Amino acid sequence: MPTANPILIPELRVMLGEGDANGLREVARELHPATVADFSEGLEDAELWQLLDCLPVERQAEIFPYFSMPRQVELVQAADRSHLGPLIEWMAADNRDDLLRELDPDLVEEILPLVAKAERHDIRMLLSCPEGSAGALMTTEYASLPADITAGEAVARLRSQAPNSESIYYIYVLDSDRKLVGFVSLRDLILARPTALVSDLMQRDPISVRLEEPSDRVVEKLARFDFLAIPVVDEHNRLVGIVTHDDVLDTVRQDATDDAQRIAAISPLGESYLEAALVSMTWKRGVWLAILFATAALTAMVLAKWESPHVWLVAFIPLVIASGGNSGNQSATLVITALSTGDCKLSDWPRILRREFVLGLLLGGLLAIPGYCLALAYAPTAAAALVIPLTILGVVMMGTMVGSVLPLVFRSIGLDPALMSNPFVSAIVDIVGIVLYMLIALVMLD
Amino acid sequence: MPTANPILIPELRVMLGEGDANGLREVARELHPATVADFSEGLEDAELWQLLDCLPVERQAEIFPYFSMPRQVELVQAADRSHLGPLIEWMAADNRDDLLRELDPDLVEEILPLVAKAERHDIRMLLSCPEGSAGALMTTEYASLPADITAGEAVARLRSQAPNSESIYYIYVLDSDRKLVGFVSLRDLILARPTALVSDLMQRDPISVRLEEPSDRVVEKLARFDFLAIPVVDEHNRLVGIVTHDDVLDTVRQDATDDAQRIAAISPLGESYLEAALVSMTWKRGVWLAILFATAALTAMVLAKWESPHVWLVAFIPLVIASGGNSGNQSATLVITALSTGDCKLSDWPRILRREFVLGLLLGGLLAIPGYCLALAYAPTAAAALVIPLTILGVVMMGTMVGSVLPLVFRSIGLDPALMSNPFVSAIVDIVGIVLYMLIALVMLD
Repeated sequence: MPTANPILIPELRVMLGEGDANGLREVARELHPATVADFSEGLEDAELWQLLDCLPVERQAEIFPYFSMPRQVELVQAADRSHLGPLIEWMAADNRDDLLRELDPDLVEEILPLVAKAERHDIRMLLSCPEGSAGALMTTEYASLPADITAGEAVARLRSQAPNSESIYYIYVLDSDRKLVGFVSLRDLILARPTALVSDLMQRDPISVRLEEPSDRVVEKLARFDFLAIPVVDEHNRLVGIVTHDDVLDTVRQDATDDAQRIAAISPLGESYLEAALVSMTWKRGVWLAILFATAALTAMVLAKWESPHVWLVAFIPLVIASGGNSGNQSATLVITALSTGDCKLSDWPRILRREFVLGLLLGGLLAIPGYCLALAYAPTAAAALVIPLTILGVVMMGTMVGSVLPLVFRSIGLDPALMSNPFVSAIVDIVGIVLYMLIALVMLD
Repeated sequence: MPTANPILIPELRVMLGEGDANGLREVARELHPATVADFSEGLEDAELWQLLDCLPVERQAEIFPYFSMPRQVELVQAADRSHLGPLIEWMAADNRDDLLRELDPDLVEEILPLVAKAERHDIRMLLSCPEGSAGALMTTEYASLPADITAGEAVARLRSQAPNSESIYYIYVLDSDRKLVGFVSLRDLILARPTALVSDLMQRDPISVRLEEPSDRVVEKLARFDFLAIPVVDEHNRLVGIVTHDDVLDTVRQDATDDAQRIAAISPLGESYLEAALVSMTWKRGVWLAILFATAALTAMVLAKWESPHVWLVAFIPLVIASGGNSGNQSATLVITALSTGDCKLSDWPRILRREFVLGLLLGGLLAIPGYCLALAYAPTAAAALVIPLTILGVVMMGTMVGSVLPLVFRSIGLDPALMSNPFVSAIVDIVGIVLYMLIALVMLD
């Protein structure tokens, strides 16, 4: 995220101090709304509202969503209630929905009566869609036309609807029940003869997503077909909204960070690393560290029972455990990312397990060789040293199998594979690894 | 990636067998190119070429990029050379560039003479841009206009240029030296009075990226400003191409997978998990497992020197190492993802280190408590048991510090933090952790 430009802050403060509304309007008009947000982010809440108040409400509503979400929430809480009604009304439906989901429900109930009735209905509909569904991602602002008009009429109607820039390029063709029957792009309308009928230009049965479809399916479809937007329909195939490319891009970026954090056993921060509060960060890391600690404690308890006369085996404990953990971590990450990008599906499990079995054999064999060489330096005999390579082979194979099976199991019972797999992979691989080591040593040496 | 639809394959084969070119044309005309690619993916190379040959070359060029990259390469290698010239000529510049980068350079030199001269120049220009730069992501197909014409003339010119759908919605305004002076959207042109001048409608000094700018900066800018495309300029501010939203989305998705794999100590596969060859997968995982094994071997060698009379300490070795490794892994992942999404910059290092120091203290303290309880069960005295919580606190703090410093160090010397950090974090945390454990035990018990 670009950081605030500190150079412009004093200039802005002078203009605010002098009440130079014209100057401020000029600055805000010339620049992209995102740039205005970047430049003014360093101002205090009261100063920021003073700046926004100089601008027409349409412009305020354009700039507002470009502040970071915590800042938007702060600004809403600090705001005079009379400002909020018009601002909320003018904000794009999807940005507004994102903001309202972050606010205290009581505050939302306080704000809603300030909003025009038609908008209020839209807001409640979007808020009722569960997080992570197509409905929660979509906006209700889209361009639609009937099928029985000409391209020339269609362009004239679009001119008078003047939909915002997000949604004018893709136009959805609806029948009298608002059912989605076709799709036409502004490009097609512009290039067509003005007398051509929309019904002849349109593509029939356009690709769409259902209101309740999970967001990763929305991402997959939009990315696969290179769409600017994808229509969202209800169970009767009626158009209820669209998901636009920019929201999909934001979702993908956020999901990628969340997934990486989950794989590293951190509950997703959901905000920027430097902005996250220390208390919430301690909790989001601490809870998983504690779970991982509990699994390591089990390993310690198993190990405490081991009274082997072969002291040289102790030195190899971390090596044996790490070999299993590292290969298990690799397998789990590969399967988790492949599931989340749609590269493989649950039904591919036999192929996945076959692959990981073969890979475990190859990788375990590969590591067993240097393991044997190292063991020769410490073991009393060359035969005794064989404990190490055999354990490494077994532990790596178990690591790849556990690492690939667990994400599949968690996905199949509806749990998030990224968040759940890591602690369980560690727990199983560590404990079984130690037990395997003890058993192989027992059989071969005692 | 959607898998091939096996149901249609027999139908397609019948049509191919009967030489039903009209039927095949019909199928390919009605469906989205991505859907045609999905449906026909299960055909043999020769059958696929037979299908493509029934279609006009424009349509072939639309469908071709929707096959997976390995399949595209296979198809090109299997192709009659006479097919390739026109196909390559008609493909969108960015898709073509992606494909040619994957081919053997000798094959590229064989194909290029078959392509029209003007296109050849474009191809060489794009191929000369280094991987991961804006230039390698961009397409040379964009709509441009001079500033001194009216909106009505502008729309008429766009009609005659009829640029492809990727690039008609954003129009770049160039001066006589092809320098980028402004930007206007098709929406603005349609909504404006037809007699309004482009120079009055356009936004001046549009946001652009330089040809050599790294792709993550391109992603950041396009995402921040919600653009459909971002213009790419050379050192004289001349427009050389655009990067479109769909290519940015593909890049983000690929980069996210690559990063997750790097963090799990896997060289990015660069292809789908199930499609990757076993040999290359063994190599991409094995090389990092071997490096991690070498660091674990060092730990074993240090541990072999430890001749402590306190046997109960052995059971806690995996627990101590895991505590450091887990917290270090968390910190490294947080810093790596924050750097790669632009959430924080190298210059934020003092804040990052301060945060991680405090977090290390908190998390280490948190884990020290159950650590002490567990130690009480095995240690001879309550005072001796203190070795465990003290070591845990030290190891966790070291983990958070090493985990956050190393990605910053690697980024500052130009190495990929995601790929390099993991093995080094493990190596340092494991060895220092064991040494710390041995030292604390020595001081407190002997």
